[in-house]
Amino acid sequence: MEAMNENGLDLKDIVAVLARTPASLTALLEGLPDVWVNATEGGETWSPYDVVGHLIHGERTDWIPRARHILAGESRPFDKFDRTAQFTESRGESLGELLSTFAGLRRENVAALSAMNLADEDLSRKGLHPELGEVTLGQLLATWVVHDLDHVGQIARTMAKAYAGAVGPWSAYLSILRDRE
Amino acid sequence: MEAMNENGLDLKDIVAVLARTPASLTALLEGLPDVWVNATEGGETWSPYDVVGHLIHGERTDWIPRARHILAGESRPFDKFDRTAQFTESRGESLGELLSTFAGLRRENVAALSAMNLADEDLSRKGLHPELGEVTLGQLLATWVVHDLDHVGQIARTMAKAYAGAVGPWSAYLSILRDRE
Repeated sequence: MEAMNENGLDLKDIVAVLARTPASLTALLEGLPDVWVNATEGGETWSPYDVVGHLIHGERTDWIPRARHILAGESRPFDKFDRTAQFTESRGESLGELLSTFAGLRRENVAALSAMNLADEDLSRKGLHPELGEVTLGQLLATWVVHDLDHVGQIARTMAKAYAGAVGPWSAYLSILRDRE
Repeated sequence: MEAMNENGLDLKDIVAVLARTPASLTALLEGLPDVWVNATEGGETWSPYDVVGHLIHGERTDWIPRARHILAGESRPFDKFDRTAQFTESRGESLGELLSTFAGLRRENVAALSAMNLADEDLSRKGLHPELGEVTLGQLLATWVVHDLDHVGQIARTMAKAYAGAVGPWSAYLSILRDRE
């Protein structure tokens, strides 16, 4: 996979991150006490447990289905993505089960991406997002990566805030405690 | 280790995160292409490579030395922490070497923390920070954890921004791309 489009996107850079996210999240979260796993940033914000469920739903319904949609040359927009599906789908699952499900789905999806044998010009192929309008396959794949990283950052931030008071005066140096406030 | 102080801090929650950070960072970063490892947020901001060097310097000079300083009842302030030591100390080291060094030092330091056999009341013992003034051992240990998470978040954010342009219109949904702007 040596495809690189006009944005300088390289499929091997994309796969390098996508393939690492499950192990990184498992190393960070598996077996952690509930004070971390169930922490939120307050209100309707998500816990690390919720985020893993959300990542699973993306593996099932978002990235590869949308890539196939583009490659099939569909003119209708992508199906909408359900951003809160995890609140019903994850019910009854332990965090360890969710992490394992995510890792398995991601492995299959990275294999599916590789099997597409995408060439440079494929990354410029277009699809229709139901809200954002015209997007390219390259943008979809870059978004898959950034979406992973956004949620890794969210998990770190959410866990950090569980200790917002406990750090005392050091709060002044720990800017993550003030992100998204 | 069942110590819990007035902030609700529990040493096993602290150790649970501290012990997981090296494996999580190794899973995320080891073997990644340079586009990720050397990315920064521009200007004087740090790359993932720089961050790992900074974490190493903290293991050597910050957390456990300061905990010992407090437990020894020292009245002088802590030694200052050098926030840019990694720019000389990491020179010539591969990211893989840095990750391995960090993992080894963290393992030793978690063992050193456990060997302190801290009791509830120890977490309220006080030390003098050179800039922040009076701090407690509990606050120091909570800060160690949040500092890890702050830098995990920074790495995710920095990597995400390497694809800020590549995501196209999806940028509107990826709020990590606008953090710390």
